[in-house]
Amino acid sequence: MESKRLAAVEAVKEIEDGMVVGLGTGSTAYYAIVEIGRRVAEGLRIRAVATSVQSEELAVSLHIPIVPFAEIETIDVTIDGADEADGELHLIKGGGGALLREKIVAASSKRLIIIADASKVVERLGKFPLPVEIVPFAYELTLRKLAALGCEPVIRQKDGGAFRTDNGNLIVDCHFGAIEHVKALGLALHGIPGVVEHGLFIGMADKLFVGQEDGAIRELAPAR
Amino acid sequence: MESKRLAAVEAVKEIEDGMVVGLGTGSTAYYAIVEIGRRVAEGLRIRAVATSVQSEELAVSLHIPIVPFAEIETIDVTIDGADEADGELHLIKGGGGALLREKIVAASSKRLIIIADASKVVERLGKFPLPVEIVPFAYELTLRKLAALGCEPVIRQKDGGAFRTDNGNLIVDCHFGAIEHVKALGLALHGIPGVVEHGLFIGMADKLFVGQEDGAIRELAPAR
Repeated sequence: MESKRLAAVEAVKEIEDGMVVGLGTGSTAYYAIVEIGRRVAEGLRIRAVATSVQSEELAVSLHIPIVPFAEIETIDVTIDGADEADGELHLIKGGGGALLREKIVAASSKRLIIIADASKVVERLGKFPLPVEIVPFAYELTLRKLAALGCEPVIRQKDGGAFRTDNGNLIVDCHFGAIEHVKALGLALHGIPGVVEHGLFIGMADKLFVGQEDGAIRELAPAR
Repeated sequence: MESKRLAAVEAVKEIEDGMVVGLGTGSTAYYAIVEIGRRVAEGLRIRAVATSVQSEELAVSLHIPIVPFAEIETIDVTIDGADEADGELHLIKGGGGALLREKIVAASSKRLIIIADASKVVERLGKFPLPVEIVPFAYELTLRKLAALGCEPVIRQKDGGAFRTDNGNLIVDCHFGAIEHVKALGLALHGIPGVVEHGLFIGMADKLFVGQEDGAIRELAPAR
């Protein structure tokens, strides 16, 4: 996991004094938060918002100042991980179950910087099952509508029961195999009433730091 | 409210033996559920699913058989009210706060029949503030994105605090005045990550029973 950590250190260099920073969630975002904590201890002055209870607790333990959303006008930069990224920097996120909060924060961020190891960069999204957050009410109806889009939907389990998100919803891992039309799929998913949010982050990422196995960091930006 | 009741009685005539029936929520759907209860007492044999705890309790008290969603393949007809309906039968719903569950059930119904009094039929939607269900997390960011669509967003209150839906979310009443492009607004709302669902029911209603003040019932179908 050294490549992830090195990429995280590189990404955190984009943070400057005075910024409002969005903290991602998951094993990669973990390294970024730890590095931000190190720089805060060195004197970096920022305010931060977190995308999960877990990340907020980690940040607080590292003395990163967490502020309520009511106190901020905008988020300057959010640093987060991803489960897959393609060449246009469209992403699949949500393996950690925090996709909704991650997307809310990303959508209000001036810049979204993603960290990943080389295994996450793919030609076409979809080998990683797409996480979709759905409401528990009448989930059987929603599963049928997801299946009708051409995937095998599986309700995520944890500790012998259905996994619940921080928002009290279910996560359905949708096995598409390869997603041909990312934008069309995103719209179709939003058109299903039981779907709260999906893990496709389309046109949202501004930069991708990829930790290579040899320790080098590759920097990718979308061609737009 | 006699005109609503008469329209409800007319709408319930569409229900036949053996059907799976979706029960709406609110003051108008109330009359429909009472009428369905009366017909069940007379021997009508149906199974029903409800769009709110409130409607389910009413149905159970009237001996209408409520079945779990897992037991049904499809819903034959759903009868519900609306807060506004235009000539194409696009609707605004959610004044009662159950828009998400109502939309989930409507989206899996072969037919959606709406009951309203004449005051609800409008040239253009939007005088009635559009209810939008949002997640509580970082709601300040979501409110800003709603306002950017050209409305005045107001968090619905109840008993001195924020109203919570059956799904634990907030309702934002979005004062648009008049909505010019219904479909475009629906897509834009779905594009905001904190939005769970909105109260625009576009192209979903199959028939509208309007109770006139003189006691007559007007029947409208969309021109599609």
